[in-house]
Amino acid sequence: EELAAPAAADDPYAGDPPRHPALHVNSLKPFNAEPPGELLGEHFLTPPELFFKRNHLPVPHVDPDAYCLKVEGPGGRTLSLSLQDLQHRFPKHEVTATLQCAGNRRSEMSRVRPVKGLDWGIGAISTARWGGVWLRDVLADAGFAEEPESQRHVCFEGLDQDLTGTAYGASIPFYQAMSARADVLLAYEMNGAVLPRDHGFPLRVVVPGTVGARNVKWLGRIWVSTEESPSHWQRNDYKGFSPGVDWDTVDYTTAPAIQELPVTSAITDPPPGATVASSEVTVKGYAWSGGGRGVVRVDVSLDGGHTWQVAEMQGEQQPPGQAWAWKLWQLTAPVPPGTTELDIVCKAVDASYNVQPDTVGPIWNLRGVLSHAWHHVRVTVAEE
Amino acid sequence: EELAAPAAADDPYAGDPPRHPALHVNSLKPFNAEPPGELLGEHFLTPPELFFKRNHLPVPHVDPDAYCLKVEGPGGRTLSLSLQDLQHRFPKHEVTATLQCAGNRRSEMSRVRPVKGLDWGIGAISTARWGGVWLRDVLADAGFAEEPESQRHVCFEGLDQDLTGTAYGASIPFYQAMSARADVLLAYEMNGAVLPRDHGFPLRVVVPGTVGARNVKWLGRIWVSTEESPSHWQRNDYKGFSPGVDWDTVDYTTAPAIQELPVTSAITDPPPGATVASSEVTVKGYAWSGGGRGVVRVDVSLDGGHTWQVAEMQGEQQPPGQAWAWKLWQLTAPVPPGTTELDIVCKAVDASYNVQPDTVGPIWNLRGVLSHAWHHVRVTVAEE
Ligand SMILES: [Mo]
Ligand SMILES: [Mo]
Repeated sequence: EELAAPAAADDPYAGDPPRHPALHVNSLKPFNAEPPGELLGEHFLTPPELFFKRNHLPVPHVDPDAYCLKVEGPGGRTLSLSLQDLQHRFPKHEVTATLQCAGNRRSEMSRVRPVKGLDWGIGAISTARWGGVWLRDVLADAGFAEEPESQRHVCFEGLDQDLTGTAYGASIPFYQAMSARADVLLAYEMNGAVLPRDHGFPLRVVVPGTVGARNVKWLGRIWVSTEESPSHWQRNDYKGFSPGVDWDTVDYTTAPAIQELPVTSAITDPPPGATVASSEVTVKGYAWSGGGRGVVRVDVSLDGGHTWQVAEMQGEQQPPGQAWAWKLWQLTAPVPPGTTELDIVCKAVDASYNVQPDTVGPIWNLRGVLSHAWHHVRVTVAEE
Repeated sequence: EELAAPAAADDPYAGDPPRHPALHVNSLKPFNAEPPGELLGEHFLTPPELFFKRNHLPVPHVDPDAYCLKVEGPGGRTLSLSLQDLQHRFPKHEVTATLQCAGNRRSEMSRVRPVKGLDWGIGAISTARWGGVWLRDVLADAGFAEEPESQRHVCFEGLDQDLTGTAYGASIPFYQAMSARADVLLAYEMNGAVLPRDHGFPLRVVVPGTVGARNVKWLGRIWVSTEESPSHWQRNDYKGFSPGVDWDTVDYTTAPAIQELPVTSAITDPPPGATVASSEVTVKGYAWSGGGRGVVRVDVSLDGGHTWQVAEMQGEQQPPGQAWAWKLWQLTAPVPPGTTELDIVCKAVDASYNVQPDTVGPIWNLRGVLSHAWHHVRVTVAEE
């Protein structure tokens, strides 16, 4: 049922885990893959084997008994925590949170003009129930106190490395890491089971409401700094630019790192090009926004955006400002008589009443990130 | 230089203060008025006499010596605070914050289809430096402690009343009121001077990043409740709906109260219909977003949105997540040779990379609130 990646003795990816055959693979080495929309939209909690995989480097082999998390405290003191320490010295917490890759829906942007990046469809987003310990509890144990006005950053480094020994890294603001409302987790469980290797075994960061790239997997080291993580992925990637900026003019210091993500939604069913009944159509999809701003409404159009109906939303109720999980939604509506094709569109509204942009052209950017315009699916209506 | 409102002995508005003659008046009783765009865009801190006025009721006459703020504490204890108490028992703090009416730019929405509400142009937004005391200090004095998970609300009531004695009211989440990062102020100063009568003398709430309607003026009473404010303006107004919902189908219980506002921007200069030089044009405007999400970029187009240039932004540097003030911006660019007309457009991006929608039709709603699509100004190019 699962396929192993093709292997060669000197291949740094030879040790990658097997993956589910239903995944659409965007890159094999490093492994990047997404589930098909219809499968994605079937589960409020995405089964881990279908959860999108976004690896920057080979999956490290971590021996859980030898695993040790280094936490650099104030004044040079370093905390070394085994998996046992983490699981027994700190209370366990669970959070249902959606993770989304900054590049989700990039393929829609690259149709406007080519961009650099993996050609994600709508599936670089998934939801899980994460179990672990609050990052703030671990930081407090290391000697840090809450400082609402601090401008520092908490930096994370993974155990995944390239051939030169450079590890994956990222950071989040210190105030977010320490906030009792931000629910930042060091997770060792996913949907009630041990974290799979592709998702960061034995320990990953889960930063609810924040771009996937900051949810560092195979977590090895944490420190606090006046600067953001020096990582390439924090400083020179995962940033948004104007459509007027291209590779000859881009200056990565002029844009902030992507952290909280904007509101988005997509149609998971019917798939593009499907044939639907001439009586009525059921449209399904997901909607999500960053920063804990829950989705408050999804509008669906069957006529390319001229008229709109409100979809029904399903999903866990989460408190305002802590709505970390997506909403799945659906609408069943009559197909207008005499129609031969439908241009189905969805758009979501979040708790701050932010909305999605109508079109993708004006948010085009050279890296193809933040592609969150209205989602269109064109289908054929069956003859009666 | 200032005009008094026309008065009659039995007119509840007879006691309203004089106003600046440059204001565009949308309603005289209650008084609602905005500054012209060119004046608005000239000042990072809006002079109080030009600051938009949004009154729901007559301006109350408050004797500062007799003034008393009631704060209902836990367990039935009520704190009574004079202006002296407020100014001497609590430390003074200052915050630069932009306030925006939910109806700002409604006139653009009513051009799509009629809506109910005051016909605001782009001027129902202004910025001031507010001075006063933290609401959280006052609530702590009344006996409340921070509770990050609390689902309660802090309710405000004004001293402004209608003829039946019903006062203006609104509420904000308790966690926001108590947060050391949310900077909610009880303000008695505006731009370093005593709060003017039209802006809430002697005391108003300033909730940075949150719709103007919750920034209750002439504050009389504060209490904490498991429910939002019972006020009409909290429960049955200031909410957003789908463009498919109209007065025959609207159900106010289905939408959340507008609190944090979405990202917006507008061109303050040149004004619509102006004639600009054929050599180059300077475009000026403002950009702002709710929730402390600072504006990180403003894109300007001279060709209706086909090509975009990045504007230069001015304004106070405020910390991430606490960027409560707008950015003023400008762009000087050559006028494309042979052009006779320009369709100038602006759009802003905030710290969560939320953007403005392209067009206003798909965000149309029956109350005409949240009108935050791209802003267009069409001008004529002078013959050479
Ligand atoms: Mo990502
Ligand atoms: Mo307002």
